[in-house]
Order: sequence, then structure tokens, then C-alpha cells
Amino acid sequence: MDYDKHALALHRQYKGKITTKLRDDQLDKTKLSAYYTPGVAAVSKAIADDPSKLPEYTWTNNLVAVISDGSAVLGLGNIGPRASMPVMEGKSLLFKHFADIDSVPIILDVHTPDEIVATVKAIAPSFGAINLEDIAAPQCFEIEERLKAELDIPVFHDDQHGTAVVTLAGLINAAKITGRNLADSKFVVVGAGAAGTAIAKLLKLYGVGQILAVDSKGIISASRDDMNEAKRLLLEHVDGSIDGSLADALQDADVFIGVSQPNLLNEGLIKTMSKDPIVFAMANPTPEIMPEIAKAAGVAVMATGRSDFPNQVNNAIAFPGIFRGALDNHVREITDQHKIAAAEAIARLIELPTADEIIPSVFDERLVPAIASVIS
Amino acid sequence: MDYDKHALALHRQYKGKITTKLRDDQLDKTKLSAYYTPGVAAVSKAIADDPSKLPEYTWTNNLVAVISDGSAVLGLGNIGPRASMPVMEGKSLLFKHFADIDSVPIILDVHTPDEIVATVKAIAPSFGAINLEDIAAPQCFEIEERLKAELDIPVFHDDQHGTAVVTLAGLINAAKITGRNLADSKFVVVGAGAAGTAIAKLLKLYGVGQILAVDSKGIISASRDDMNEAKRLLLEHVDGSIDGSLADALQDADVFIGVSQPNLLNEGLIKTMSKDPIVFAMANPTPEIMPEIAKAAGVAVMATGRSDFPNQVNNAIAFPGIFRGALDNHVREITDQHKIAAAEAIARLIELPTADEIIPSVFDERLVPAIASVIS
Repeated sequence: MDYDKHALALHRQYKGKITTKLRDDQLDKTKLSAYYTPGVAAVSKAIADDPSKLPEYTWTNNLVAVISDGSAVLGLGNIGPRASMPVMEGKSLLFKHFADIDSVPIILDVHTPDEIVATVKAIAPSFGAINLEDIAAPQCFEIEERLKAELDIPVFHDDQHGTAVVTLAGLINAAKITGRNLADSKFVVVGAGAAGTAIAKLLKLYGVGQILAVDSKGIISASRDDMNEAKRLLLEHVDGSIDGSLADALQDADVFIGVSQPNLLNEGLIKTMSKDPIVFAMANPTPEIMPEIAKAAGVAVMATGRSDFPNQVNNAIAFPGIFRGALDNHVREITDQHKIAAAEAIARLIELPTADEIIPSVFDERLVPAIASVIS
Repeated sequence: MDYDKHALALHRQYKGKITTKLRDDQLDKTKLSAYYTPGVAAVSKAIADDPSKLPEYTWTNNLVAVISDGSAVLGLGNIGPRASMPVMEGKSLLFKHFADIDSVPIILDVHTPDEIVATVKAIAPSFGAINLEDIAAPQCFEIEERLKAELDIPVFHDDQHGTAVVTLAGLINAAKITGRNLADSKFVVVGAGAAGTAIAKLLKLYGVGQILAVDSKGIISASRDDMNEAKRLLLEHVDGSIDGSLADALQDADVFIGVSQPNLLNEGLIKTMSKDPIVFAMANPTPEIMPEIAKAAGVAVMATGRSDFPNQVNNAIAFPGIFRGALDNHVREITDQHKIAAAEAIARLIELPTADEIIPSVFDERLVPAIASVIS
């Protein structure tokens, strides 16, 4: 099948992916007078008297904004807000399909952190939670931090934290299979953008052993003077005492985590890792190494971002349940503890992990309730 | 029935009024790969190559943002964005119910024209059209003008133009009944806020005779020095050569148009108007004069904003068809000519106007297609 042609045809046929409908499909004249003037005035007055009643009377109780400026879309890069719309509307489709969450894509024609923060703050009362999506690093870090501090609804940058949660879930089970203790293991995270940074931070918080982060110039270390503010801050979460290349980093490493670029890893490099290494090669659509090559080189557990191989590390495993829980349990902030609890909840769904099954499929119907129950 | 209680209970029961659903309800794994990664990338690339294709592939083709800062909500005044949400979500319900238009309420936590314009511009690519709602005068004038100039999608402030269009439609038929020629008639517009200003402008453009505008201080005239910029600009559209009170203005007037406050008009004032006068008393929920008193005083044609009297001047008569036409016919701007054409299309639906039927009910199913066909 020609995937591109199929996708274009489907989008044209349905003229998009989401639509609105009325919650009450038995509308009559009397009800219209209650839903709009004059009756609605009583509802507005009730919220004016007590703004905390907003979710009780309006659709904000089940509503997530999917917000992007289109600056880091899939593997396509900075394609701008309009071209990002199909992806954001697709995210809204996933919210509805997997967690019955109403979601509205909001694409932004502004790009500086100041402008994005001002815009999202201005429209925030319209929503029950904010999902930031496909905003480029390092701006995404500042934008998320400021919005989390200034808004009283959950703000979650899925490219960072969704990826980190599912990665940690997979690693918990991968460690069991290979007889490792994560607290004693050496991790190499390749790619120091949004996802890589969030993964390193969450691993550190979870209490794993040594973490080395690697970008296109080599190991992120305190001695480097070519790093932006975000990478300098990453030094708080990784071992920044070591200089060197990716090859240097991989010596005796237990775990390779790639959120970088195709074909970065090879058989030779894998042979320098510890015995029965774990490889999460999550570059999309072409991973850092193909599973068959990795396994032939001795990799014990392999995960990718793709649905056509076992162990797909897919954000859609985590975010629907995380937002379902945040909305239902009136959570104001999705904390680091929530992320770890979500990862553990996902990992627990696989009772007997095997090399070909360390994480559930996105279609596992136990996921949303299991995750939502720990976001409280 | 206790309307307030009924409205509160209905809103609580359904937890709001609108929800989202998927356009394609036959979703399977293959389609998911087309609607989201990897297939969606082809759709994003198509829009990156040609941004004009955005409406072809995304829900923006049928999507209106209902935007308010909550500064002039119904008769409640400046109740703020959160308390305005039930009204804005109600407007979205009307869009869906009457014209099958998807609509998302966006409430703004900013209030200066600069901030509102910046915010709406930033999120504008997300939508196919913008409906400004319940934003206080005179800020609403500047906000609408700037957004119309700077955006390439339709921007329509319904409190101004929706009201003006339906008022003109009603007047066209009221004139027929009373044997008047609008071009020779004297109009007194009472209330110089958003609605009153837009009505005066549209009447002038339509070519009616003399128009006097009246605010709480008296007739809007060139000699006054207590007027804001918006009222000074209104002088371009009304006869500003006359000073005086409301009573002075009403001497021999053919038409009273009130968008002001309850019980402003009385029998004595009506007796000073010309024979068989026309009175549109549209203050909500209590009109400037009750119909039975007006009729007893000699009023020939009476309209109000209420559904429990004949001749309800209701924005919902006009805006669903106006936006339906703008979206379907890819109109970039809703012009003055569109507004007049819409008013005439509404008026034409009443073949034989009577004093009790000068405009169609909002439930008249001919309205949306009739109006949409002239917005092109």
C-alpha cells in the first residue's frame, strides 16, 4: 500500500479528523432557552460567584488543548504551524479514541518563548489541561517551566515526558529480563533534545546508576564550552565528568537509549557494551539500528518507535491515561512522582516480560484506567 | 418553571454542551497509521508545500472560534472570561445546531486591544473563521478592525453586525407594512455601544433617511465634548448637527431602535413620534417598552429581543447562515455588502409581512441556506 496516498485520500475524504457534536442530542426550544439566553445567565452567575465551578458546568472538565508552533514536527523539523495542523489534529484524534478526552488543536503563529507563554496564558481558561507538542528544544523547556509555574491547570510536554515515561516503563521490564538492577547500570542517552533530556532527567530521578548524555558533538560534559543553557542544566542530571565520543560513552554501557538519528549505532559499537545489552533505538521512522542487526550483535532486549517491530515505545501508551487521570482527579500539576508512577503502572501490565514483550501495545485497553488511577 | 434551576441542572447533568467526536468512526490500526504517524507526515508535507491546502486536509474548513474576554456578557456586564464560558459554549451549540458548524469557545484572560489582537492573531491559523463575542465597546471596534485588516480569514463581531443585519431585515418588512420608504424615514437609535453603533452604520450604508443616535447623555452631536473616540467616529454615520435629549430626538421620528435599557420609552414619548411608528425595543431581558403598552400608544410594528413576543430580533437568525456561507464559499472577509445582502435575504423569506411577522423565527430551516447563498 502507498501510505502517503492513503493518508492524503483519507484526510481529503473526511475533511479532517475531528468534529464537534452536542452533548444533549434531544434539543428542543425549552432546552435552547436553558443552554443559551435567558437560562445560561444563571450558569454564568454561578461561575462568577465561584470560578472553581467552571468544570462543573462547562466542557473544560474533559478538554485538553494540543498546542504547537510547528517548530519540531515529527521528523520533519520546523515546518510551521499550518503544516503541523494534521499532526495536532491527529493527536486530538488519539485523545478521543484512546481516552474519550475532548481535545482541540491550537497552532501558534508565534515562536519566541515570551510570545508562546503569553498566548497560552491568555487562552488557558478555555481548557482543562494543556498538552504542548512538537515545540523545538531548547525553547520547549523554558516554555513548559514557565507555564507550569504560572497556570493552575496541568501543562505537559508530551515529546519530553510521554517519551520518558514509556521509556522508563520499558526499561523496568528490560532490566528484569536481563537480570539487571537499574540502580547499578550504566546508561547512554543519545540525543539531547526534548526527549533525550526528559529521559535522562526521569532516569536520574528514578535512581538509576551512571547516565551519560551524548549529542552530535560527543558526551555532554562540564568541560565543554559549546553548549546552550539547556544542555548546561542537563549536567545536573547526568555524569558530566567524562569527555569523549559516542564510542567512548558506550564502553561497558548496559543500556543504549537513542532519540537521535538513523543508523547511528552499529555492530562494532554494540560489541563494546556490556554483555546482553539493552538497546532502545527510537529515532523515527528509521531507528539508530535495525532490530535484526542489533540482535545478531548480541542485544538482549530491543525496542524501537515503530509499530512493525516488537516493543514499540510510543507516547500514545502513556499520555491518554495521564491526562484522563489528571482531568478526572482534578490534578493541578503532573509531577515527577506522577511520571514514575505512570511508568511503573505501565510496566506492571506485563506480568511476565520477555524480550519481545516489555511494554503493552497502545491498543491494550487496560492502559488508560491503570495509568489514570495513579495520577491523583 | 424555574428557568435558573433548569439551566443549572441541565448544565450539570451533561457537564457542558459540546464534545468532540471522530469524523471517521470506522477507525482501525491501518487508518490510525494514516491519521497519525507515519502517514500524517505526507499530509503535513502537502500543506508545507502549499499552505492554502490547510482547509482541504484539516477540520479548519468547518471551524469557527467563538472568542470573548468576558467584558460585556449578555446583560451581566464585565463578568470575566471564566463566567462567560457557558455563554460562549452556548454560542458553539447554536453554531452546531443551526448550521452544522464546528465551533470552539476561546475565552481570553487578557483585556486590552493590543493583548487581544496579539492573542487572536497568534492562534488564528487554528480556525476557519473568528466570531468575536461579548467584548465591551469601544474596545471591540478597534479589535475587530485590526483583526480584519491583519488576518486572511473572516472576523465578525456578532454583537455588532449580527444584531445590525437582523434589525435591518426587520425594518425592511416593517417599512412595507406601514407604507414607509426607509430612504425618507427618521430613525432614532438609542444606545451607542457595539450594537447601536453597528445598526446606525448599516442603516446609513443602506441609505435610510435621517439617523439620530442617542446615548445616556442625549443626542450624539458634533458639539458635544464628552465623547470617546468611537462615538466621535459614529458622527460620520449619523446626523450630528442636532443637540438635545431623547425626547427631542423622538419628535416626528418614524422608527425607534433601542439597544439600551429597560423601560426607557413610554406612551408619552411615543405620542410625539410620527403616525404608526415602528419600535424595535431590544434591551434584554426587559425591553425599552413592553409590546402591549407600545401598541396601546399607537405603535404599528413592534419587535423585541425576546422569544415570548412576536418579531424576535435574535442574532441567531443571521450568524449561522453568514458563517456557513463564509466557510463554504471561501470568503476572506464579511463585507458591508454581505451584511446588506444577508438582511435582504432574511426579509425576503417573509412573503407577506404582517405586524406580527416581519422576520422569520430562528427555527426557520430556510434561513441558513438562504443567507449562506448570498455570502460569496
